[in-house]
Amino acid sequence: MVAVLGAGSWGTALAIVLADNGHDVRLWGQRQEQIDEINEKHTNEKYLPNIHLPETIVGYVDLAKALEGIETVVLAVPTKAIRDVLQRVRACKEQPITVVSVSKGIEPDTNKRISEIIEEEMGERLQDVVVLSGPSHAEEVSLRHPTTVTVSSKNMDAAERIQDLFMNHQYFRVYTNPDLIGVEIGGALKNIIALAAGITDGLGYGDNAKAALMTRGLAEMARLGSRLGANPLTFAGLTGIGDLIVTCTSVHSRNWRAGNMLGKGYALDDVLANMGMVVEGVRTTKAAYQLAKKMNVDMPITNALYDVLFNGKDVKSAVDSLMARGKTSELEDLANISL
Amino acid sequence: MVAVLGAGSWGTALAIVLADNGHDVRLWGQRQEQIDEINEKHTNEKYLPNIHLPETIVGYVDLAKALEGIETVVLAVPTKAIRDVLQRVRACKEQPITVVSVSKGIEPDTNKRISEIIEEEMGERLQDVVVLSGPSHAEEVSLRHPTTVTVSSKNMDAAERIQDLFMNHQYFRVYTNPDLIGVEIGGALKNIIALAAGITDGLGYGDNAKAALMTRGLAEMARLGSRLGANPLTFAGLTGIGDLIVTCTSVHSRNWRAGNMLGKGYALDDVLANMGMVVEGVRTTKAAYQLAKKMNVDMPITNALYDVLFNGKDVKSAVDSLMARGKTSELEDLANISL
Repeated sequence: MVAVLGAGSWGTALAIVLADNGHDVRLWGQRQEQIDEINEKHTNEKYLPNIHLPETIVGYVDLAKALEGIETVVLAVPTKAIRDVLQRVRACKEQPITVVSVSKGIEPDTNKRISEIIEEEMGERLQDVVVLSGPSHAEEVSLRHPTTVTVSSKNMDAAERIQDLFMNHQYFRVYTNPDLIGVEIGGALKNIIALAAGITDGLGYGDNAKAALMTRGLAEMARLGSRLGANPLTFAGLTGIGDLIVTCTSVHSRNWRAGNMLGKGYALDDVLANMGMVVEGVRTTKAAYQLAKKMNVDMPITNALYDVLFNGKDVKSAVDSLMARGKTSELEDLANISL
Repeated sequence: MVAVLGAGSWGTALAIVLADNGHDVRLWGQRQEQIDEINEKHTNEKYLPNIHLPETIVGYVDLAKALEGIETVVLAVPTKAIRDVLQRVRACKEQPITVVSVSKGIEPDTNKRISEIIEEEMGERLQDVVVLSGPSHAEEVSLRHPTTVTVSSKNMDAAERIQDLFMNHQYFRVYTNPDLIGVEIGGALKNIIALAAGITDGLGYGDNAKAALMTRGLAEMARLGSRLGANPLTFAGLTGIGDLIVTCTSVHSRNWRAGNMLGKGYALDDVLANMGMVVEGVRTTKAAYQLAKKMNVDMPITNALYDVLFNGKDVKSAVDSLMARGKTSELEDLANISL
């Protein structure tokens, strides 16, 4: 039995995978109406339209009941809500639990990765943290389209247990990678580049420009990541390039969609109000901007996006100044990844 | 004055860039009717619909006349035609010329890169070969959408001359990279992955599956490339990831389109007949398959595609066997890039 905390699209999709693999799943959410819908109609229309949920997924609004007898918790809440939810989890669990982190971001101001926040909040009530990340739109997972993700942990035995929990031979394939920092940083920073890619698309700049932006975006993700202790090779894998591609090019991506609206001239507040779901890239841009300054890492795309999001800079002039950068030797730009 | 040999979409788009930069351009093609259209209507409707060509682009069917007084030739013919065209160039040029190679592929059987073929055919009539590559759909270049490419050569002074020739501040940005092998191998092999990506899309497998395929595809491109002497970092740049992204995700890509039709169940001969343009990935798959065998490099996607194209293997079972591969440690797979 597994508890999934957060009944948004990703939490619900992962609950489906677990149920398909034969596990009983408790899916916790805060809104009574949504949980009633899950238990009575076996749907979660707002987040996964037209998907029938397996009946072994049972919804809960009562967190203590959802956690009774549970040893493994999948944490699928927006990064902003993580500390609050973990404090409530801690208050109702005596025994240490394993937390599977599936949210992607870096916390502004503290600049902590999600696994660090989980360690900090759970203290001695934590068995292990395992991170699950990769190119995986929830909508496609819920349709059982072939999907490949990576799990990582400080304790690779725990990662392998979680690999076994989620892996199936029908549509969900799970790799392991011991580079926890690289896996988390890639998943977080790709949302920044997706916002920027959405902007260039919104401006009508085309696929050539977007591909150039994504290429440079990956280079700046790897530059910051390797300075933070990641293995640069991880950025060439599923949680780096793979997730970057899917987030920048798929119509399902809400970070891309938010950027696209910014590129078309909508104001940030209107865009966020319109999305109806959390746009993680906005918070992560702030954190990455702070980290780049602190670590003295060159991150031109992150800086340009920060100016757009937090200093009211015009999107077109921000993108145009990115395009017109000085360097003309490509390896010079890439070499700072310090492979 | 520059001569562009090959009046297909890419040759014509590059002729537009050169004309926009103030150069007189001679655009050579074999079909009288097409050249008449270029000179009389200033259009090339079959290849670049709805684009008006600058009048400083003059079409030629007579190769000797097109080459009179010319020192720089842009070679934009299908890889299959390169040897034949170069033999004719050689026959009418006394003075050594610089050849800019913009076609992408590896020759089956000889397994030579395009720059090697050019050296072989031109002999002492060759000044320099410069390769120009990167994420650059011709259609978007002709619309003056922002585009970024890379030039490379054994002689970087020559590469910088070609950089100056093509670079402008409006929409066409040119980087240099001294890794000639990496630049050429990336541009060639990405067409194989684009065919495979088209197949997964044609099968309806979705964006998650395509991103996983592209990630593994890049890894196998870098594995073969580094064995052939390329700098693996080049595969993280515009001519690697950048070109891979644009070719696998854009509706303009004919390799993707051909794969897409294969995925939908059309026979290879029908697909090729239907395209009306050359699908370079088919020839390159054969060459890469031979190279991988010879160099003992693991290239599962290339091998699966070879079986589909040349051994009549069913596309669905080829893709499904790719998805179900044994390895479950991600870095193990990536480490063979030998960074």
